[in-house]
Amino acid sequence: MNGRRTGTVTMHDVAARAGVSIKTVSNVVNGYPYIRATTREKVESAIAELGYHVNVSARNLRRGRTGLIGLAVPELSLPYFAELADSVIRAAEARGVTVLIEQTGSVRERELEVLAGQRRMFTDGLIYSPLALGPDDVDRLAAVDYPMVLLGERIFGGPADHVTMSNVEAARAATQHLLDLGRRRIAVIGAHAGETVGSAALRLQGYREALEANGVPFDPALVGEAGLWHRATGAETMARLLDADLGIDAVFGLNDALALGALHVLHARRVDVPGQIAVMGFDDIDETAYSSPTLSTVHPGREQIARTAVDLLLARIDEPGADRPYQQVVADFSVVARESTLGDQAPAEPTPAG
Amino acid sequence: MNGRRTGTVTMHDVAARAGVSIKTVSNVVNGYPYIRATTREKVESAIAELGYHVNVSARNLRRGRTGLIGLAVPELSLPYFAELADSVIRAAEARGVTVLIEQTGSVRERELEVLAGQRRMFTDGLIYSPLALGPDDVDRLAAVDYPMVLLGERIFGGPADHVTMSNVEAARAATQHLLDLGRRRIAVIGAHAGETVGSAALRLQGYREALEANGVPFDPALVGEAGLWHRATGAETMARLLDADLGIDAVFGLNDALALGALHVLHARRVDVPGQIAVMGFDDIDETAYSSPTLSTVHPGREQIARTAVDLLLARIDEPGADRPYQQVVADFSVVARESTLGDQAPAEPTPAG
Repeated sequence: MNGRRTGTVTMHDVAARAGVSIKTVSNVVNGYPYIRATTREKVESAIAELGYHVNVSARNLRRGRTGLIGLAVPELSLPYFAELADSVIRAAEARGVTVLIEQTGSVRERELEVLAGQRRMFTDGLIYSPLALGPDDVDRLAAVDYPMVLLGERIFGGPADHVTMSNVEAARAATQHLLDLGRRRIAVIGAHAGETVGSAALRLQGYREALEANGVPFDPALVGEAGLWHRATGAETMARLLDADLGIDAVFGLNDALALGALHVLHARRVDVPGQIAVMGFDDIDETAYSSPTLSTVHPGREQIARTAVDLLLARIDEPGADRPYQQVVADFSVVARESTLGDQAPAEPTPAG
Repeated sequence: MNGRRTGTVTMHDVAARAGVSIKTVSNVVNGYPYIRATTREKVESAIAELGYHVNVSARNLRRGRTGLIGLAVPELSLPYFAELADSVIRAAEARGVTVLIEQTGSVRERELEVLAGQRRMFTDGLIYSPLALGPDDVDRLAAVDYPMVLLGERIFGGPADHVTMSNVEAARAATQHLLDLGRRRIAVIGAHAGETVGSAALRLQGYREALEANGVPFDPALVGEAGLWHRATGAETMARLLDADLGIDAVFGLNDALALGALHVLHARRVDVPGQIAVMGFDDIDETAYSSPTLSTVHPGREQIARTAVDLLLARIDEPGADRPYQQVVADFSVVARESTLGDQAPAEPTPAG
C-alpha cells in the first residue's frame, strides 16, 4: 500500500536519471523554494518516468501544508497553560491556522515524544513549551527538521526562535511592590532547590535582586520549596511557613496557583490579607481578578507571547529554507496591584462589583 | 509525488485482477478485520502486481492506527474543559494512547470543521464535545466514517456512543441542598432563554423540579440569563440580580465559573456568604476547594466521564466493523457541600488549612 510496493526505485535512481544530487531530489520532493525551474523539471520528469514514490506521504502532507500547527504544553489543568493555549489558538485563528494541542505532563520522555517525527508529520510546525528538558537537550532540538518556536525558561540560546517572559525583571518588580508597602519579611513559595534553570530559579533571582537593592537581608528560611506549581502545593507550603513562625509579613507565590493556595490557607487560619500578610502571585490568570481578596500579580504578556510565537512560527513555515538567525523575544510585563496587597486601596476592577 | 503519478491503476483494476468486488478491495486497503485470508492474499497480490497505490496515504495512516485520538472541546480557558482535557489525556495515557486537543470556541462552523475528514485522518477516533450543534445535526454526525464518542448535553440519542452528566438529577440535588438549609428565594445564574437543549435547559429543569417537590413557587424574576458561562458573566448577572432587590437568600450558578463570579460580587458588596446568601456551583473544578469561602458544588464525575469515553472510543476503534448498538452512559454525581452554603459547619478540606 505504500511506496515500497511498486518495486525498488529509490531517490538515488531519480538523482542518477536527472543528473542531479540526491540532496536536490530531496529538495524538490520536499517542496523547498529556490530551486531552478529547469532543475525542478528534470527531477520531476525522472520521478514520473521511474514511477518513484516518496515513502509514505507523511512528508508530502507536511510540505503540502496541513494548515495545522502543534502546541505542546506541560499541563492544561494549570490555568496559565490553559489560558496560554486559548491565546495561541486565537492568535493562530486570526491567521487562518488551526492548533492541535498536546500535553506532556512535564515528563521528560513525553516531551521528547512530542518532538518525534511521526507525531510531527500532521502539523506544519510546533510551538513547544518544555518543562523537563534543559540546556543539555539543545542537540536534540537542533536535530528537528521542521519549523519550531520555543516558549518558556528551560532553554535559552537554543536552535530555535524563542519567546520568553521577563522573569527576573518581573519578579524583581513584584518584590519591589511588596517592599514599597513596607514589607520586609517576604516569603517565597515555589522554589526548586538545586535548579539553576527554569522559571523558579529566574524568579527567585529577581526576588533576591530586589531585596539586595533595598538593603534587606536574604533569609533562606523564608524560601518555601514546592514541587508542582499547583494550588494544593501552594497551600501546603504556606501552612508549613506559618507553622515555622517566621514573622512573615508578605508572600510571593512564584505563580498564581501557588499564591491562591496560600490565600486559601491564610483565610482558613483567619490571617488578615493584606493587613497581616500581603500576597503576590505571578501570571495574571483570570481567576486572580475574582478571588477574595483579588490577587495582586504580574501580567506576563500572555497574548503578546502567543501572537509573537505564532508569527515567528508562520514566518519559518513560509520560508523553510531561510537561513535567518534565531530570534529571542522577551514579552512586556506589568505589575497588577489588587486587594491582596493594597486592601481597600485597590483600584476598582472592571467587573461590576460596586 | 502521490499515487496518481504512477499512471492509471485504479481500485477497479485491482478488483478485476483479484476477481473480487471493489468493496472487498476497499476493505483490504482500509485494514478491516473479518476478511478471509485467501481473499486478502488475492487482493494484495493484485495490488503488488499492478503497482496500485491508495491516493495519499491518509487513509492508511488512519487505518494503520496512529495511536492518537482527538478531543474537541469548546474552550480550554473554561476550567471545566481544561480539567476534562487533563482527565481524558490521563485516561488515554493509561491505555497507551495520545490525545490531540482541538478547541472549537463553541462556534458552529468550527465544530463542523472538526468533523471534516481532512482533520480526522490524523487520529484513530474522536471524543467530541459540541456546544453549538444540536439535535438538527444528527444527520451530519451519522455521516462520519470514523469512531466517535459524544460528550455533553447537546445531542441525545445520536448516532454515536455518548457519555453525559446527570444534569437534571444533579441540579435537583443541588437545589434541594439549598432548600434543606431553609432557603426559599434561590436565584439561578446562567439560564439561556429559549434554549430547550443543552446544560442550561437541563439544569434549570432540575432546579424547577426541586422547587416543585418542595412546594416553593417558581419565580421567573430569579432566573438570571448569562451568555457564556464565565466568571465575568456570572459577576454581571449577580450584580443585576442584587440591583433588582429580589430578596434573594441563595444563588445557584449553573457552573462553577458563574458561581465564582457571583461570589466575587457578593464579597465586593460585603454580602455575607452564606449568612445572607448561600452560593452553589456545578462542576467541582479545582478552584472551588480554594476560593474564600470554598464553593459548594456538584461533582459531576469528570474522571468517570473521561475514562468511559476513552474506553468506548477504543472499543469502537478495535472493532470498526462491529454493529453494536450505541451506548449512553450517565456519570455518577455527588453534591459537595462547602463553606459557601454551610459556613463554619463545612467539613474540613483535605488541604492543610488548619
